[in-house]
Amino acid sequence: MEHTHIGGDVFFLLTGAILVFAMHGGFAFLEAGTVRHKNQVNALVKILVDFALSTLAYFAIGFPIAYGISFFVSAHELAGLAGGNVFGAQGLTLVKFFFLATFAAAVPAIISGGVAERMKFLPQSIATLALVGLLYPLVEGIIWNGNYGIQATIESLTGAKLHDFAGSLVVHAFGGWVALGAVITLGARKGRYTAAGRSHPFPPSSILWLSLGSWLLCTGWFGFNVMSAQSLDSVSGLVAINSLMAMVGGIVTAAIAGRNDPGFVHNGALAGLVAVCAGSDVFHPIGALITGGIAGIIFVRGFHICQERLRIDDVLGVWPLHGLCGLWGGIACGIFGLERLGGMGGVSPVAQIVGSLVVAAFGAVAGFAVYGVLKSTIGIRLDEEQEYRGADLSIHKIGASPEAEIR
Amino acid sequence: MEHTHIGGDVFFLLTGAILVFAMHGGFAFLEAGTVRHKNQVNALVKILVDFALSTLAYFAIGFPIAYGISFFVSAHELAGLAGGNVFGAQGLTLVKFFFLATFAAAVPAIISGGVAERMKFLPQSIATLALVGLLYPLVEGIIWNGNYGIQATIESLTGAKLHDFAGSLVVHAFGGWVALGAVITLGARKGRYTAAGRSHPFPPSSILWLSLGSWLLCTGWFGFNVMSAQSLDSVSGLVAINSLMAMVGGIVTAAIAGRNDPGFVHNGALAGLVAVCAGSDVFHPIGALITGGIAGIIFVRGFHICQERLRIDDVLGVWPLHGLCGLWGGIACGIFGLERLGGMGGVSPVAQIVGSLVVAAFGAVAGFAVYGVLKSTIGIRLDEEQEYRGADLSIHKIGASPEAEIR
Amino acid sequence: MEHTHIGGDVFFLLTGAILVFAMHGGFAFLEAGTVRHKNQVNALVKILVDFALSTLAYFAIGFPIAYGISFFVSAHELAGLAGGNVFGAQGLTLVKFFFLATFAAAVPAIISGGVAERMKFLPQSIATLALVGLLYPLVEGIIWNGNYGIQATIESLTGAKLHDFAGSLVVHAFGGWVALGAVITLGARKGRYTAAGRSHPFPPSSILWLSLGSWLLCTGWFGFNVMSAQSLDSVSGLVAINSLMAMVGGIVTAAIAGRNDPGFVHNGALAGLVAVCAGSDVFHPIGALITGGIAGIIFVRGFHICQERLRIDDVLGVWPLHGLCGLWGGIACGIFGLERLGGMGGVSPVAQIVGSLVVAAFGAVAGFAVYGVLKSTIGIRLDEEQEYRGADLSIHKIGASPEAEIR
Repeated sequence: MEHTHIGGDVFFLLTGAILVFAMHGGFAFLEAGTVRHKNQVNALVKILVDFALSTLAYFAIGFPIAYGISFFVSAHELAGLAGGNVFGAQGLTLVKFFFLATFAAAVPAIISGGVAERMKFLPQSIATLALVGLLYPLVEGIIWNGNYGIQATIESLTGAKLHDFAGSLVVHAFGGWVALGAVITLGARKGRYTAAGRSHPFPPSSILWLSLGSWLLCTGWFGFNVMSAQSLDSVSGLVAINSLMAMVGGIVTAAIAGRNDPGFVHNGALAGLVAVCAGSDVFHPIGALITGGIAGIIFVRGFHICQERLRIDDVLGVWPLHGLCGLWGGIACGIFGLERLGGMGGVSPVAQIVGSLVVAAFGAVAGFAVYGVLKSTIGIRLDEEQEYRGADLSIHKIGASPEAEIR
Repeated sequence: MEHTHIGGDVFFLLTGAILVFAMHGGFAFLEAGTVRHKNQVNALVKILVDFALSTLAYFAIGFPIAYGISFFVSAHELAGLAGGNVFGAQGLTLVKFFFLATFAAAVPAIISGGVAERMKFLPQSIATLALVGLLYPLVEGIIWNGNYGIQATIESLTGAKLHDFAGSLVVHAFGGWVALGAVITLGARKGRYTAAGRSHPFPPSSILWLSLGSWLLCTGWFGFNVMSAQSLDSVSGLVAINSLMAMVGGIVTAAIAGRNDPGFVHNGALAGLVAVCAGSDVFHPIGALITGGIAGIIFVRGFHICQERLRIDDVLGVWPLHGLCGLWGGIACGIFGLERLGGMGGVSPVAQIVGSLVVAAFGAVAGFAVYGVLKSTIGIRLDEEQEYRGADLSIHKIGASPEAEIR
Repeated sequence: MEHTHIGGDVFFLLTGAILVFAMHGGFAFLEAGTVRHKNQVNALVKILVDFALSTLAYFAIGFPIAYGISFFVSAHELAGLAGGNVFGAQGLTLVKFFFLATFAAAVPAIISGGVAERMKFLPQSIATLALVGLLYPLVEGIIWNGNYGIQATIESLTGAKLHDFAGSLVVHAFGGWVALGAVITLGARKGRYTAAGRSHPFPPSSILWLSLGSWLLCTGWFGFNVMSAQSLDSVSGLVAINSLMAMVGGIVTAAIAGRNDPGFVHNGALAGLVAVCAGSDVFHPIGALITGGIAGIIFVRGFHICQERLRIDDVLGVWPLHGLCGLWGGIACGIFGLERLGGMGGVSPVAQIVGSLVVAAFGAVAGFAVYGVLKSTIGIRLDEEQEYRGADLSIHKIGASPEAEIR
């Protein structure tokens, strides 16, 4: 009986892992649809290879850093057949690794959308290894595993731990603010802003692929959030309905604020989902709706500010989407999670605000540091000729529609 | 132990909800691939925004109408932590809401394919709110929740309730017949039928996107049908195999009747799945195969009759697909569900025939009423110039392939 | 309680079935993206119709051959409500059928990619019926159900049965080697190799669709492998992490060996997954990584050898992908499954090597036989004119982008 119970948890976490893995397809197609045609192949390959490298780095270093568990023991122990080991029966911990590896790989996938169309392949791969192997697990371990006693300190100071149920901060704010550092270090695409200072936006290649990317992300996100409970005993329908309502809120406000623009509507859904992660287990559905609705507006306004005012050439708007909406999600958790606002309580507004700002700041510093070091050593940018031809032909020797192009 | 049991049901229903949510991506891409290029963006945005509005209307009004449960209580009660509440432990009812909300949102998604390429955005949004907030929950509550004692009356008259396990009638027939009213009220696209009365079919923009839509719908449909059991104690493999066999039947007959046309083959799979919903828990797999096979033929013939004989410009053929095949499914449930035809029994042919016709009639009346009122007040149709330019540029100010089009 | 336990297994197997069903969409889009534009529709329709015919053949003949269970009994018995029947409570065996039917249908889906662009529709349909109805179930029954006592004999000779947990041999090697016979029997596409003997590769139509196909296959593959446990009591996280690591290994080595070519990278992921199926329950994750990494190289090198040296016009490279990597997976299971190499043990290198070679040889013979008979009777190849126009217009009377093409 006990066995089946654990089998259920293995199945539950596996389903979550598969759903979040599918989100990486979403990242790939969202980027491929948003960049120009000449950089579509690069978007697809970059996401897939980054996923592979992330998994290797997280397997060898990252997961051990965050959770103190190493896989360099026999398969018998891993499968949980040897008595008294740390892996749980039926290899439960191995599925937990799979689930969390798909989270870790979201960090380079987020950055990828910001640095698209002019980044070299090798430095992006190295940055992935450094971020997923070392820096992300540091944040993850502190917030989700109580490493270094920092959560205990926060709790003793504010009365509650920094609450981040499904990673508005750990994954999205961290990834989005790293991306900000990366994008600024990299510089804008040629022609994006003229010498005279005028903005010249590049239209996306395909709304259909952009939309497919968004759908894959939205669908998988319910695994991202609900399966973060990590067991059938603690799964809650509240997380599901809150994710739904926040997504809906993001769609509606982004449709209005973005004047029915398809890019804003499809990214608005994601904005709501980014923001709801942290508090999805403590919000009332109406709190989630408001949180997501505000996120939709943050994305639309943030995108404009980022690209037009600050002149930061963040191609997919990953800093507003993951960075700003993730930050907002961390803070919103301290507001709409309060019992007096219909929430479940147990959160501290002070802890949430300070914690969210610290995670964002750490991400930005990490982004500038990692991409700065790479820039000053091996270089991070395609040369002008390569960028002009496009990353597809320059790096992959083939375009996205080879038959039509070769003719 | 009890707890895990409920956790399993939460997980089960959540998986169903995710699968049916993914079907909405399928609706979007099926429509985008079938309409002309200049209306693809509109198809995508319409489905996503309709989904969001549906969820809001169903949350605030629809679900309370159908099931007498309101969400305007504290998160503690929603999560099922407070003793003796109606929401079940671990927020079970919240996932049930999510699952059923994805069903409710199928109604505007079905209609969307019929009214494509010339419908204004605002009236479609209002129609969505009215249909999902008020009219659909009425049907749903009567058939699935026994509201107003109507099922009890049917049972006392015919010996069995109106059986509609997964919604051939509640969702598909209702949605398809509403769509008929909407499409007739709206009128045909400019140029679809010439003044001299000749039919001038518009070829679909992309078989690939049409196919992707169909695949997403087919895949999610197994959640639509099997998870309609709503608990692990009542889930049955019979529903799964019957859905499979009906889909297979639809593919084979539509391929033959439709002479290997890709549109017919891909929609034939859906026709079989529409028809099997009602009786998927009572059919023998061979009964399901026949039901689906007949549905494939109904779609191919119905599509031709609708578009060429009746000159109803139902763009995706949603009336033959959901309306006629749904009606057929409701009736077939009363035939192949009988024990003497290998089925599980417990169904009444009379109840199924009469009930199916009533649901279809109610849908048609609702369609004419809702779209008729909107037509005579705010108007429902793009003006000629807008229709000519396409809904994408007219409503969303951008086409589906912006980079190529702006060049 | 017992009931819920079985409900959990029904849900588990159903999820596996849905995931593997979705892989067929992956087969369709992988082929559509790799072939030339004029054959995309044919790819999509062929996969869908083959799936339907496979299911029929497997329902009527194949599953009964492999497992000795027939569905021609009442729905009551099928649903497991009649006492003492073979179908298990809650229709468990029916979902098992669904799950295994999606495996069986992979055989024609694999072949489809090899014979693309010049195969007639009817003989391909007949081959599907013969392969899935008769030949595949023979292999499946012998290896997975112990039919004819052959596994018992292997065990008595080598100390262990032929181990093929999730079908590197049963599905992939068999399908890939049948495809080799089919492709050779069919002959190369017109113009692929010039009369003077020069190779003239046809570039793929769309990397985006190729990539989507790969993503759908990768995602569903976790159901293919993990759900092969067939019950919650025997599910193991080890299978999940091994599948992940092998996929990652295939991506990395194919990216390097294939010089970042998108076709190689996306198929490299599949190569790793093909190879890991057999031993996914006995490998250490590092053994899985190595197995997948070698598979990535086998695919890249094998593709070149197949197409350029051997001049076999296997369009998608299904023989290197499924045939060679499947064969390698069967053998690798006997190496990295050994306890001294970190594995779980219980495998025999001799049994694995000999068994793998026999399955491959049987597949090749079956392929030459089935397609040879069809060639010498009804013919298997489009005529020159049809091939030149493309299978889409020749067979389906419509192209993949009808609106653009008809203009």
